[in-house]
Amino acid sequence: MSINIEKVHSKNKTMTESFVQGASESLFSIYNLPYGVFQRKDEKNPRIGTAIGNYVLDLAVLEKAGLLISNSNQSLFDRDSLNFFASQGQETWSIIRNRIQSLLSIDNHELQDNAELLAKALVPQADINMLLPFKIEGFSDFYASEHHATNVGKLFRGKENALLPNWKFLPVGYNGRASTVFLSGTQIPRPKGQIKLKDQDAPIFDFSNKLDFELEIGMFIGVGNPDGRRIDVNKATSHIFGLVLLNDWSARDIQAFEYQPLGPFLSKSFATSISSWVVPLEALKDSMTPLPKQFPECVEYLQQASPMQPNIKLRVEIQPKDSNIRTTICETNCTELYWSMEQMLAHHTVNHCIMKPGDLLGSGTISGPNKENWGSLLEITFNGTEPIKLVDGQERTFLQDGDTVIITGYCEMNHSKIGFGSLEGTVSRERHD
Amino acid sequence: MSINIEKVHSKNKTMTESFVQGASESLFSIYNLPYGVFQRKDEKNPRIGTAIGNYVLDLAVLEKAGLLISNSNQSLFDRDSLNFFASQGQETWSIIRNRIQSLLSIDNHELQDNAELLAKALVPQADINMLLPFKIEGFSDFYASEHHATNVGKLFRGKENALLPNWKFLPVGYNGRASTVFLSGTQIPRPKGQIKLKDQDAPIFDFSNKLDFELEIGMFIGVGNPDGRRIDVNKATSHIFGLVLLNDWSARDIQAFEYQPLGPFLSKSFATSISSWVVPLEALKDSMTPLPKQFPECVEYLQQASPMQPNIKLRVEIQPKDSNIRTTICETNCTELYWSMEQMLAHHTVNHCIMKPGDLLGSGTISGPNKENWGSLLEITFNGTEPIKLVDGQERTFLQDGDTVIITGYCEMNHSKIGFGSLEGTVSRERHD
Repeated sequence: MSINIEKVHSKNKTMTESFVQGASESLFSIYNLPYGVFQRKDEKNPRIGTAIGNYVLDLAVLEKAGLLISNSNQSLFDRDSLNFFASQGQETWSIIRNRIQSLLSIDNHELQDNAELLAKALVPQADINMLLPFKIEGFSDFYASEHHATNVGKLFRGKENALLPNWKFLPVGYNGRASTVFLSGTQIPRPKGQIKLKDQDAPIFDFSNKLDFELEIGMFIGVGNPDGRRIDVNKATSHIFGLVLLNDWSARDIQAFEYQPLGPFLSKSFATSISSWVVPLEALKDSMTPLPKQFPECVEYLQQASPMQPNIKLRVEIQPKDSNIRTTICETNCTELYWSMEQMLAHHTVNHCIMKPGDLLGSGTISGPNKENWGSLLEITFNGTEPIKLVDGQERTFLQDGDTVIITGYCEMNHSKIGFGSLEGTVSRERHD
Repeated sequence: MSINIEKVHSKNKTMTESFVQGASESLFSIYNLPYGVFQRKDEKNPRIGTAIGNYVLDLAVLEKAGLLISNSNQSLFDRDSLNFFASQGQETWSIIRNRIQSLLSIDNHELQDNAELLAKALVPQADINMLLPFKIEGFSDFYASEHHATNVGKLFRGKENALLPNWKFLPVGYNGRASTVFLSGTQIPRPKGQIKLKDQDAPIFDFSNKLDFELEIGMFIGVGNPDGRRIDVNKATSHIFGLVLLNDWSARDIQAFEYQPLGPFLSKSFATSISSWVVPLEALKDSMTPLPKQFPECVEYLQQASPMQPNIKLRVEIQPKDSNIRTTICETNCTELYWSMEQMLAHHTVNHCIMKPGDLLGSGTISGPNKENWGSLLEITFNGTEPIKLVDGQERTFLQDGDTVIITGYCEMNHSKIGFGSLEGTVSRERHD
């Protein structure tokens, strides 16, 4: 395998560039360095890497070569999940991140000039497959966007009772199903379930006719609270390893019949998709945007010194089967969330609930103020009553078989854009029954 | 360690007795043989055993001695959880169970006459600690007792709307929190949370004042559906490894404020307790009792040839702090469940949701027709409005600090009683905050 390395010269002396060709202009520059688990197409062993430009840097190879030192006696990166590395804590995350940044920098020659090692460590993304980044034992999903909760509330309870009395006092959430969190690219089977049609007394059992996406951000826990001690809202950041894009696929007709009184179950548990690369929270710190003042004031354990959200621009597109044309369905931003990530985590553990490394918390659908900012078809089509037009002329209320939903996100900062990659899933009806 | 083995002579030629002293008269006879994970007090290694009388039979020792043969090349019993053994399937479960029954029988001399091996393999229960039997990655809880759902519905929605429209069409359930499933004996911290008092607009943050138990049966999945293929209701039995007692601790005041619209979350996720010994479904087969005809008829995937429940007599007692007196609070039976275990499992997977070995499914609170058969204080005290009297004269609406809740269960069959042991938990306020 030959690797074409072109030394890119710095245009701006205040920023560090990488020697990896194209990295500095890409969404995977030296300022991003997301972690993921990959497998070379010609090998079996999964290992941990970071994305740089169009390449993956194999961290297991660098670690074995002695270029990545940590306090741990065990390998951090020759593993099939990020759970162990993430459990090592913020200091280790920082040391490793700084070290990788340094090794990839144009000013550092340790890796750059070691052609043999470089050939082993730097793999074109085309030569690998990505795997699920964490072994996920816990998945919870919140409901933290005010526009989303209001839109859904209006549809089901009318304008007067749109937001329920608890919504502004606590981040409403529920337990999801961890066993069906899938990686981007996994085909999504249209689920069957019990559906109550308007004019009938008894439900029918059929394929969902109201299959929807939900645009969310997912956060992965690095350091848990194994003793059940609650996580302080002002220290919660140090527990959060990084973020991914998340699609909480939802079957609205199944949900409508099943969800009272214990919440959504089979309407969600068939599939949740996440993007492959976990962007470290540290990479996003310059994009942190203060949240508007929360009113009414929340109770003490939710009072955060300065609640913020990363400024992540998010987009949802739909690409129908046999079409090359993508239609943008929604554009919104992570800053639309009412509750901060730290508030969600503090709330989740205030009752002594135990978090483990690799646990995933979803933000809930992120909707902005206007129709073009709404993060689900339920909202955009007013529960299927107002179809939208795709660019190629087709209409949609909910998702059709063969539709691919593409979620992308990036964070724009002073000197670079930090990308989340693309989260894709195609709806299918062909899967076994 | 000396073991006193008394050969018990068979009183009844049609039943097999064990050579282990006291076993035949106990709830842990040769017909029970539940599995659990234990640790000798003087050793570190956890391993798998079965209960026989007042002893634990160390199956790792027997396996090593070549007395337990299976198709697997790997050890089934020298492990810290039942997940691997349970994943081997019904044929292996039967072979092993029959073999253990044979080895413990008075008519078999392989183990009985091998004093050295017996001394190693048969450990008094007083010399061991029990551990969580499974590594549990998924926990779901159902709501399958009609009396319970009706009682709760009446309290919150009035008599007319007690059962919601979906209840008789599908086993209503929700995702629970697997990380806080604890073993019997674990102290239960009274959770803090947001509670809305009657005369106030905003919630307060305080200790729950309405801490409750929920009497349930838990079923452990042995064989999952890793490919997401749905589990047929008429083949579901072969996926169920065994049953335990389960207490779904609930903070009713936290639940009341948080649960709309996504269901219970922090009001449940602080703790769920299970009993130590997993009783194999096979041990209960002679107690299987047909369920009353379900009406209205359910949709096809829930139509089971002959839905049954094991006849398990269940009891809840409360023992206050510094008291030796237990008060029986509830007596009921597993046969009070409207939906069968197989129907719950078929429903859970009908949307392609993935089950794994060690996943736990709770039945939901099991309540019978009368007040003395109701499985939670919420029902028994009409949400705290009608206190009950304990034997020692104290009153209770909900649980007090120091109260121990004891759940016991057994199955009475022709020739023996099959015990589930005791599931205990003491409420505490002292735990760290």
